[in-house]
Amino acid sequence: MLQNIRVVLVGTSHPGNIGGAARAMKNMGLSRLVLVEPAHFPHADADARAAGASDVLEGAQVVSTLEEALVGCTLVMGTSARDRKIPWPMLDPREAGVMSVEHAAQGEEIALVFGREYAGLTNEELQRCHYHVHIPSDPTFSSLNLAAAVQVLSYEVRMAWLATEGQANEVEQAEPRVERVTMDDMEKFYEHLEATLVNIGFLDPDKPRHLMARLRRLYGRSEIDRSEMSILRGILTETQKAANGEPYKRKDQ
Amino acid sequence: MLQNIRVVLVGTSHPGNIGGAARAMKNMGLSRLVLVEPAHFPHADADARAAGASDVLEGAQVVSTLEEALVGCTLVMGTSARDRKIPWPMLDPREAGVMSVEHAAQGEEIALVFGREYAGLTNEELQRCHYHVHIPSDPTFSSLNLAAAVQVLSYEVRMAWLATEGQANEVEQAEPRVERVTMDDMEKFYEHLEATLVNIGFLDPDKPRHLMARLRRLYGRSEIDRSEMSILRGILTETQKAANGEPYKRKDQ
Repeated sequence: MLQNIRVVLVGTSHPGNIGGAARAMKNMGLSRLVLVEPAHFPHADADARAAGASDVLEGAQVVSTLEEALVGCTLVMGTSARDRKIPWPMLDPREAGVMSVEHAAQGEEIALVFGREYAGLTNEELQRCHYHVHIPSDPTFSSLNLAAAVQVLSYEVRMAWLATEGQANEVEQAEPRVERVTMDDMEKFYEHLEATLVNIGFLDPDKPRHLMARLRRLYGRSEIDRSEMSILRGILTETQKAANGEPYKRKDQ
Repeated sequence: MLQNIRVVLVGTSHPGNIGGAARAMKNMGLSRLVLVEPAHFPHADADARAAGASDVLEGAQVVSTLEEALVGCTLVMGTSARDRKIPWPMLDPREAGVMSVEHAAQGEEIALVFGREYAGLTNEELQRCHYHVHIPSDPTFSSLNLAAAVQVLSYEVRMAWLATEGQANEVEQAEPRVERVTMDDMEKFYEHLEATLVNIGFLDPDKPRHLMARLRRLYGRSEIDRSEMSILRGILTETQKAANGEPYKRKDQ
């Protein structure tokens, strides 16, 4: 589905930025790059910044007009500064990512269009876009590097794609399942902890203050798993041995 | 509020990436850059890629250890590939942005930590982080350019900040302020804990296994406050006395 989404760079001056854009795209699973009248391409600087994304550069299509770059597209989004004279439907990158993926899933062809390093897209070019996308930047320093702008939009496309793939939780799923301890294991731990604190003389059973309550609050919110619990219990057992205290025995045994 | 969020780059090889990171930060309204042992800095390549963000470079703090870079921080997030042997609390960039802004709004100091261009962060460095952040990338081409990674996280911080900006007053009034301990206090605690575990014979310095890493993970995610820390330190001190161990002294004293 991501192959339906192309990145179009218009009038790029610095070939290094083309390489950086290619790398950002490939990192996020995008592969189709179209270059409208690049100043220098191919170029060693593009290869260097692309790192392992040379396949994206090799597959890049070079054309001479934006019109050619957009052939077949049903949805075109162009990056833009905010204050344009002609008001236009405006999206933030997150909305652009979601909309791109929704349309791409229908088999449509989508273009994300990025302008020149210093001058952006012309008004005429912007008027060929269905939507303008503004990356929210600090108004006092608002112009992103071209490859950085491609990174942000490609990232939002990927986030939206992962969400629709039902893989939004991919990160969470990747973690091996953690076996959290049960509440009764926690109670045994608190009992053992209390006995140990008495052994080492830190807790006076006649003046317990709120010590155990504070420790319960701390450990209670820590979502302790079984391997961690066995470490904590091991520490308590060794502490009791070191203190020559009574070995821990559960009260009900 | 964004000034409470610092970007930490560890062992950067290419000064151009430092400049690119500075530009990405400033575009998103971040200004505090800390460099841990950069290979070359200051450097003309950094200045060139920073474009108008030379103030971020000029204000950058250069230190020799990650520990120094994290002084004063109560929340540390480190970027990481996904498959680590020791599972760790994992966030995607969006969650990291939201959490950073929530904590920064409480007046806390936050660090976003980025590793070396080729090798990332070491396991030891990752264990100093409360959370790991994984930028969801194509598994077949997963390594982002350093400045691009800084761009993605800074962008998510800005998106979260823009979302809460209108609610700033509410956030501050919301919860009573808890005085969380700083990273340097946590390091002193881990040092004390390790010494104590050796005293009681639970930790064999010659065969440490992953014991301290597991304990760092447990206590690191527990958001310990100052009164809890003084209890934990008191327990360690009494345990050492009970074990007739050496009283704890900080290594650097």
